[in-house]
Amino acid sequence: MRTQVAIIGGGPAGLLLSHLLHRRGIASVVLESRDRAYVERRQRAGMLEQGTTDVLRESGAGERLDREGLVHHGLELRFGGAGHRIPLTELTGRTVTVYAQTEIVKDLVARRLEDGGDVRFEARAVEIDPAAATVTYRQGGRTRTLEADYVAGTDGFHGVSRPAVPGVRTFSREYPFAWLGVLADVPPSTDELIYAHHDRGFALHSLRSPKVSRLYLQVAPDEDLAAWPDARIWDELAARFATGGGWELRQGPITDRSITPMRSFVAEPLRHDRLFLAGDAAHIVPPTGAKGLNLAVSDVTVLARAFAERYASGSETLLDGYSETCLRRVWRAEHFSYWMTTLLHADPHADDFARRLQRSHLDYVASSRAAATSLAENYVGLPLP
Amino acid sequence: MRTQVAIIGGGPAGLLLSHLLHRRGIASVVLESRDRAYVERRQRAGMLEQGTTDVLRESGAGERLDREGLVHHGLELRFGGAGHRIPLTELTGRTVTVYAQTEIVKDLVARRLEDGGDVRFEARAVEIDPAAATVTYRQGGRTRTLEADYVAGTDGFHGVSRPAVPGVRTFSREYPFAWLGVLADVPPSTDELIYAHHDRGFALHSLRSPKVSRLYLQVAPDEDLAAWPDARIWDELAARFATGGGWELRQGPITDRSITPMRSFVAEPLRHDRLFLAGDAAHIVPPTGAKGLNLAVSDVTVLARAFAERYASGSETLLDGYSETCLRRVWRAEHFSYWMTTLLHADPHADDFARRLQRSHLDYVASSRAAATSLAENYVGLPLP
Repeated sequence: MRTQVAIIGGGPAGLLLSHLLHRRGIASVVLESRDRAYVERRQRAGMLEQGTTDVLRESGAGERLDREGLVHHGLELRFGGAGHRIPLTELTGRTVTVYAQTEIVKDLVARRLEDGGDVRFEARAVEIDPAAATVTYRQGGRTRTLEADYVAGTDGFHGVSRPAVPGVRTFSREYPFAWLGVLADVPPSTDELIYAHHDRGFALHSLRSPKVSRLYLQVAPDEDLAAWPDARIWDELAARFATGGGWELRQGPITDRSITPMRSFVAEPLRHDRLFLAGDAAHIVPPTGAKGLNLAVSDVTVLARAFAERYASGSETLLDGYSETCLRRVWRAEHFSYWMTTLLHADPHADDFARRLQRSHLDYVASSRAAATSLAENYVGLPLP
Repeated sequence: MRTQVAIIGGGPAGLLLSHLLHRRGIASVVLESRDRAYVERRQRAGMLEQGTTDVLRESGAGERLDREGLVHHGLELRFGGAGHRIPLTELTGRTVTVYAQTEIVKDLVARRLEDGGDVRFEARAVEIDPAAATVTYRQGGRTRTLEADYVAGTDGFHGVSRPAVPGVRTFSREYPFAWLGVLADVPPSTDELIYAHHDRGFALHSLRSPKVSRLYLQVAPDEDLAAWPDARIWDELAARFATGGGWELRQGPITDRSITPMRSFVAEPLRHDRLFLAGDAAHIVPPTGAKGLNLAVSDVTVLARAFAERYASGSETLLDGYSETCLRRVWRAEHFSYWMTTLLHADPHADDFARRLQRSHLDYVASSRAAATSLAENYVGLPLP
């Protein structure tokens, strides 16, 4: 079996790449180790930069996003018992859109299949040859080989693509906290997201849809979910959001709960021979800045353009520049995500000096137009490379 | 002997406070432990915020400053072998002025004596009673007592004022580096300051006057000055500034050299009973953001206003608010100084991830108008409280 681009991993990065390539007349095969139902159920991020919605819309995959996505024009920083709105659109001219990653995956799977795309579920890549651009995979109890001109590794942090890059250099940072995230069947209590800093820890008030709230609490990295019955979660959220004085947190049945570790990670370079890494296979950000999915979209947008140039003109100039082009944006997002994480979380190791600096920093971001613009322009997303 | 305000320490903070009080008809006595020649020779900072020059000018102490001060409209960040100008005035509408602290001290001493002010040199305070507002001091081999309504502690980090505040709370941070600073009899090689980041360490190109360059190198905290003959200093500066390609570092006789430790420090509160702390007695910043002298000026400006209200109306409202009013600005400057220090220095303990983040942060400040404005508005100084 032969194709032009073999894509390992059927998450949003791999599916979108396959879709973008198809739009440019380039054939691909997507190998996804899980089944379709599993892939379409994975709960992940849900805050899209304007550049991300632009890519989806312009590629014709944004119809439901346009109908159901919730456009946001600001967010709230909350600390010291008061809220401080960051007017994202006023400061940057851009917006963000709440639309769950899992919905994007559903849209892209449906679209690829409609377009006659080759998406193979329960097809687990086991070996990649970056020089030959071949992928060995297991499907239905049999071992097969997919031959291609190029291989795109979009199989996430735990995938097989990154280890296939010899001499890959990695950079990472662990954080002394994690997020306990819940989905609750209750309309969100406020129109915009609330990022709350409190001595007890960070909390985030977000949403998945007009009927489903998404709430997060900073907890210890080794926190036991069993220690968090519903009542404790609601009490802790109320304490950290310092509710009262104008608003209350609406409570509803918690339908999903999980602990998300916090990690920063970058692999360099993103290319080896005919293998290209993109998305979580290449880099992880802590979720505070909502950058993970957006970076994946940015990577595959650059990669699709490079493949298009290659197949249109034979030139590999853009492919040669792929790693450097993407890494500049990746490190910007890594810095921003680190910055927003340390700005908002309670560091258990911080001394009194560090705590005072953090509070002064928060006061500054809430009071300086320049500082708020800096947060805003990163949050809504810097221009695609 | 009795006065209205006893001022301990005849550095720029104490002298300016005495001058500002005199302008408002309030009597003070300044006790300075050193002799006049020593005080007028101390090499310290030399970059004045616009708010600082405004205070000096409006109080009638800015005549020579206006004549000899060098107004700057920008600075250069230099890294990766290239310079990136931060256009301070274009971004903020404000300027900074190069005028050495030692010249301000000369101007203020001369002015206080012309105005009949009571500035006592070689008068060493040994004990302060914050409740009685009395100061015991040694002068000419004799012990004397100065009685006052209030005491201002402007005697620096190592002075006796801060220890006289019972239960004072302190916050501090040491840095794993120091500055080796030299004065050289050579016109500065560029018109504006250069803040250089290099893997070998931070370097700063500054000036004291049109004929005297002021140059700094990041070194180890326990660095031995003897290990730095002139040639090594010039070679190291050239390497860190990545000279060539348009400019060269002019060399001249080095007339002064010293090692400056880097420290962040804040004492809270700034008031106890009738004793008020101001300037370095209350807080220290690392010199990177050029905030130390400017904070001292801001403290005593607020304090003079509060004394003026007290003597005009009997109200202690502004005196009661002094500590909180100043600390808000102090912590802003502490955060900015910490931020600019960590942005530009090579941290010997940084891992590869931290180094990549730092480079991305530098690239961002050099390329984002919002980020550059944030640096600029802090550097030229936020409005006086």
